[in-house]
Amino acid sequence: MHIRLINPNSTASMTNQALESALRVANAATHVSAVNPTRTPVSIEGSADEALAVPDMLSEIRKGEREGVDAYVIACFDDPGLHAAREVAKGPVIGICQAAVQVAMTISRRFSVVTTLPRSVPIIEDIVQAYGAGHHCRAVHAIDLPVLGLEEDPETAERLLVETIERAKLYDRAEAIILGCAGMSSLCDRLAKATGVPVIDGVTAALKIAEALVGAGYVTSKVNAYDFPRQKGPAPADVDLPLIAANS
Amino acid sequence: MHIRLINPNSTASMTNQALESALRVANAATHVSAVNPTRTPVSIEGSADEALAVPDMLSEIRKGEREGVDAYVIACFDDPGLHAAREVAKGPVIGICQAAVQVAMTISRRFSVVTTLPRSVPIIEDIVQAYGAGHHCRAVHAIDLPVLGLEEDPETAERLLVETIERAKLYDRAEAIILGCAGMSSLCDRLAKATGVPVIDGVTAALKIAEALVGAGYVTSKVNAYDFPRQKGPAPADVDLPLIAANS
Amino acid sequence: MHIRLINPNSTASMTNQALESALRVANAATHVSAVNPTRTPVSIEGSADEALAVPDMLSEIRKGEREGVDAYVIACFDDPGLHAAREVAKGPVIGICQAAVQVAMTISRRFSVVTTLPRSVPIIEDIVQAYGAGHHCRAVHAIDLPVLGLEEDPETAERLLVETIERAKLYDRAEAIILGCAGMSSLCDRLAKATGVPVIDGVTAALKIAEALVGAGYVTSKVNAYDFPRQKGPAPADVDLPLIAANS
Amino acid sequence: MHIRLINPNSTASMTNQALESALRVANAATHVSAVNPTRTPVSIEGSADEALAVPDMLSEIRKGEREGVDAYVIACFDDPGLHAAREVAKGPVIGICQAAVQVAMTISRRFSVVTTLPRSVPIIEDIVQAYGAGHHCRAVHAIDLPVLGLEEDPETAERLLVETIERAKLYDRAEAIILGCAGMSSLCDRLAKATGVPVIDGVTAALKIAEALVGAGYVTSKVNAYDFPRQKGPAPADVDLPLIAANS
Amino acid sequence: MHIRLINPNSTASMTNQALESALRVANAATHVSAVNPTRTPVSIEGSADEALAVPDMLSEIRKGEREGVDAYVIACFDDPGLHAAREVAKGPVIGICQAAVQVAMTISRRFSVVTTLPRSVPIIEDIVQAYGAGHHCRAVHAIDLPVLGLEEDPETAERLLVETIERAKLYDRAEAIILGCAGMSSLCDRLAKATGVPVIDGVTAALKIAEALVGAGYVTSKVNAYDFPRQKGPAPADVDLPLIAANS
Amino acid sequence: MHIRLINPNSTASMTNQALESALRVANAATHVSAVNPTRTPVSIEGSADEALAVPDMLSEIRKGEREGVDAYVIACFDDPGLHAAREVAKGPVIGICQAAVQVAMTISRRFSVVTTLPRSVPIIEDIVQAYGAGHHCRAVHAIDLPVLGLEEDPETAERLLVETIERAKLYDRAEAIILGCAGMSSLCDRLAKATGVPVIDGVTAALKIAEALVGAGYVTSKVNAYDFPRQKGPAPADVDLPLIAANS
Repeated sequence: MHIRLINPNSTASMTNQALESALRVANAATHVSAVNPTRTPVSIEGSADEALAVPDMLSEIRKGEREGVDAYVIACFDDPGLHAAREVAKGPVIGICQAAVQVAMTISRRFSVVTTLPRSVPIIEDIVQAYGAGHHCRAVHAIDLPVLGLEEDPETAERLLVETIERAKLYDRAEAIILGCAGMSSLCDRLAKATGVPVIDGVTAALKIAEALVGAGYVTSKVNAYDFPRQKGPAPADVDLPLIAANS
Repeated sequence: MHIRLINPNSTASMTNQALESALRVANAATHVSAVNPTRTPVSIEGSADEALAVPDMLSEIRKGEREGVDAYVIACFDDPGLHAAREVAKGPVIGICQAAVQVAMTISRRFSVVTTLPRSVPIIEDIVQAYGAGHHCRAVHAIDLPVLGLEEDPETAERLLVETIERAKLYDRAEAIILGCAGMSSLCDRLAKATGVPVIDGVTAALKIAEALVGAGYVTSKVNAYDFPRQKGPAPADVDLPLIAANS
Repeated sequence: MHIRLINPNSTASMTNQALESALRVANAATHVSAVNPTRTPVSIEGSADEALAVPDMLSEIRKGEREGVDAYVIACFDDPGLHAAREVAKGPVIGICQAAVQVAMTISRRFSVVTTLPRSVPIIEDIVQAYGAGHHCRAVHAIDLPVLGLEEDPETAERLLVETIERAKLYDRAEAIILGCAGMSSLCDRLAKATGVPVIDGVTAALKIAEALVGAGYVTSKVNAYDFPRQKGPAPADVDLPLIAANS
Repeated sequence: MHIRLINPNSTASMTNQALESALRVANAATHVSAVNPTRTPVSIEGSADEALAVPDMLSEIRKGEREGVDAYVIACFDDPGLHAAREVAKGPVIGICQAAVQVAMTISRRFSVVTTLPRSVPIIEDIVQAYGAGHHCRAVHAIDLPVLGLEEDPETAERLLVETIERAKLYDRAEAIILGCAGMSSLCDRLAKATGVPVIDGVTAALKIAEALVGAGYVTSKVNAYDFPRQKGPAPADVDLPLIAANS
Repeated sequence: MHIRLINPNSTASMTNQALESALRVANAATHVSAVNPTRTPVSIEGSADEALAVPDMLSEIRKGEREGVDAYVIACFDDPGLHAAREVAKGPVIGICQAAVQVAMTISRRFSVVTTLPRSVPIIEDIVQAYGAGHHCRAVHAIDLPVLGLEEDPETAERLLVETIERAKLYDRAEAIILGCAGMSSLCDRLAKATGVPVIDGVTAALKIAEALVGAGYVTSKVNAYDFPRQKGPAPADVDLPLIAANS
Repeated sequence: MHIRLINPNSTASMTNQALESALRVANAATHVSAVNPTRTPVSIEGSADEALAVPDMLSEIRKGEREGVDAYVIACFDDPGLHAAREVAKGPVIGICQAAVQVAMTISRRFSVVTTLPRSVPIIEDIVQAYGAGHHCRAVHAIDLPVLGLEEDPETAERLLVETIERAKLYDRAEAIILGCAGMSSLCDRLAKATGVPVIDGVTAALKIAEALVGAGYVTSKVNAYDFPRQKGPAPADVDLPLIAANS
């Protein structure tokens, strides 16, 4: 089976890191490939960054469909364009936040999330809520470091993450920790060891769930919401207005 | 004050219809303009269509910011890119679904939504839920006509809408009806008259709420989530992989 | 259009303050009037105070209906008698809490509320929840000052409000603040300036939303729940018991 | 112990009916009395009726406090003024809707409510939701008969109730039925017999729960929300405006 | 009427304590008996302990049914096997957590729970949520003492409980406290006196609610979910596999 | 890796069926074994059946731990004893309902469940709600056939299932169907083919998710709730009461 990781941002080192995390756990029989668009933001920090990344991400999925890819992992914790991607793909599309949440709800009763920037906190809270895990998620914490700061200053990143996880254990009574950014993937094992609490990296979780779904023969339902987008003709040319201004 | 309607799809006749709806209710002192991107899908039917429309919609907002626009209305009922738009804009950005829901929750205790295609039903249910109106929304119904069918066959559209609204009155005990597509805007008054129940067009609702917010001096909070997107440099060039394939 | 503010308590200086806040933002073409009953509690601090104020408030609405008032603003943050008022009125009736919450959900992703007395905290939490904003509201805080204390000791009130808002910014990561008492209305701009976070006064918000709804032609739905109260005859006189005592 | 039923409407025959229902189940040692205000609506059909009934209902509670009443039952299914009454009373105040819901959640997993008028359906749905039973309540049905119609045409009422309960059994798979109006109290046993499903009358339920709470020594918490209303002086006389009109 | 307390664990001193709490408040006409299985865990600390206790607890209910017991109280705060017990019993089965929550929602607007071990916190949160009280419950706190520690070191237990309740009053603004363990029952009055906040012991609450339900004639609904378990024959003997191992 | 299916009921043919379903999708490297206790009910139809099955199911897990089993699948759709099993096991324990729900939320936006007996409907609704999928689950339907009826009359079972799934497609607009009973496992592919909608069998889903979690190295968190049960000594022998009766 062929699973493709798509890092929606254009920072190839993050794509590489995600690929490495995936390869560490992939089955021998699984072919894993990883791509990133080249014109999207260098990191996804907020909803506008997400929006700018999604069309090129969908192009990657269309490309993957032509190549016979069996399932996709969207390697960005905000799960940008997840519903859209599922409309475009035939096989399963796994978001790393949703995958991590599903794992956390299976191996613990309460978890917390640790992410990079405070501005991502409400975004993550909203998708965790939409995935039905609002009751099980104690808190979403931010270490207040930009996404690329994880690569630029890994020592500071690791120190801040350990401190935040320790606080989440103590004050949230978190029983598992979800890493709220694909760029934290390579720190996962070290953080688990340092803190003694299960730490869940979404890339790892998503890759294994993708394998599971393909292995069981599940594909994205094409009944109703996730059906392929309808092919539509060009816009009716009856009017012509790049900018319509009125009553001024 | 200057309010700009942005129709995220590229069908100018729909932009025109939205503008007409807005002008019918705008204050004399309000300058209303309307635009649509030209490269986006001709209609928004599902999450993939949404995703393809948002970046150009954000460009329109950036253009509006340079022109001193005070507030924006996103004239598509799925409220595509609403959070992203709010990060980019200084003034308020109003989604027509959220606006219609807020009006419905003010003038009734229970409402139903009538939209075009069945595939949009879960999308609308999800945003209605996210806006906190899940408990107040009796149901989202679809007349099973494509968005552009509203313009191509207005008689059928109107007939199906009247029938669906009558059923919602009877079986849902809906006290107000929200039109779940910007392209139904021009039918609003006729539907209200035909069915005797308040019918809410999101474009109208959003325009008036935009006026209200600008009039009161409210702008989008730039504290945390809706702060402007951070300017980021180019991606680190340390790696170079359009397609990384491994363990295959 | 004629919009009437009704301050449900009998403290005319608070009515005046609300009127001033409304006039600061009202459209030139809007006629704003303000009234308060004279026999109701001097301030609304809890559910019993609310209950005692509502019948006279409904009388004011009946009076307004005879005078052709187009919409009403209930200028008390607990939104007392909001559903009842909507049954009585033909035009829209806006509660200042619901209006403030709708604005907050439009210009921010997370907000906190700051009110006067701790006893009002659960009351406000419950209506915020009923308005569907429980997920978006970080916390409701009390400065522990009676309502009339806002007028009697404005320096202390302002100091306590600034301190509480600063804490809400820091610990709640609140992106907007709602003032949880009509009596705080006049402090709104000073608080926003002092703290750098958008501060929403419900009176202002409600007035503008009332204008918006009237401007769009929306009236309260008379289908089902908000229909006018049925006129009923006198009670059946078949029994006669001011106090029935039994089995004692 | 002395438990007082307060029927908030002014129809003494309904007060009598409630008293009879209570006496059928009261412990021998319980003194039950029943009162109704004389100036309130003859029936409670909607939120405005509720609002008009509550102040006089609170007066009855104040009177009861002077007489040493131990607990109160509010004998109207909308539980009007329940929070207010709890602020005024020292002992427990039981709403018949909340009591019926608590019984239903104890003896069944899913229940439905059958009430009189359709306009009460959203009101009941909202309080059932606020009591935390939204998930357990299959539906609220209305037989479309005014409250006093229960007394005026008991045969029709009983027939409509049996039909509605049978449908709730079949289509809702309701495991218990709550009678959504105090005026249905006397029909409870006949309906249970006719339909073979447990039927819960709120008056009965509330009386027994009131006995239970008094018997265990529970009183209403006076910590925070339900504390007695603060005694406040007259309104500050610094302004004088029965009707303030401005900018017109 | 005959009400039987069943302590699911095998520690008879706890059974005795529960019986004493019940007898303090039982009506003179109520026959209260108390039992505990003898092979179950000595205390219920977590879901596995619960599971091991339930079958013998159900046997006690079957025994009670043969003896004509009218209602049962499950005297363990996790309400283990509550749904199962209701399937087996004809009369009402009351869980002490559910009973305490119902009382707390009647005499206060917000409550907190104080239990023994941290591992029980998510269990209690989950059932409080399932009972519909998630919104009304401020927090579940643990004093970090094993269940039997309550008996072994009552001074420490009482000191920790007082401290925790004081914190809940101050920081949660809890208006009532629920004791989250049957073994705290005998401390209830002392804790209430020491802290000045209503303290609810579930055993007491459940006994009184059981009396109330029996007194009103309510029995467990046998329509659908709580119907008696179907008598089933032995397993089909067509296969025979204590351990099936395959593809290894 | 070694994954063990535990069928909590004692019907070996159902264990066999589950094993076959698992083997059809298991990775070549996965050792799958299947067991069932011999003294538990022949089928799980309701909460009492569940309760009686769990202790022996936990014994099977303890046995599995000694044999080095890596993960467990509980092959009964009510997920009986899931939390308890996770306390006892070191590796992941997967419930087939939770697994099916997670798959359904990944490949569709809305799903329905089809189970055997009506009495299981509220049980399944409650766990689906607890897993956070209440919003995504359209309905739980029952074909009104006992669990063992699936084996005794497979033609009728299949016909009823096809009819119910067709109705769920039409009226619920279900985009995926979950089979709500382990005993339907072998029908999964035929049902999907007959109805054209993805049909999810929980045994298959759970086996693959178990493989995924073990493959990624996830184990059950032993921090707090799912920690191993504490070893406790015998009960204090200070009292001796098989049956305490008092005040009678």
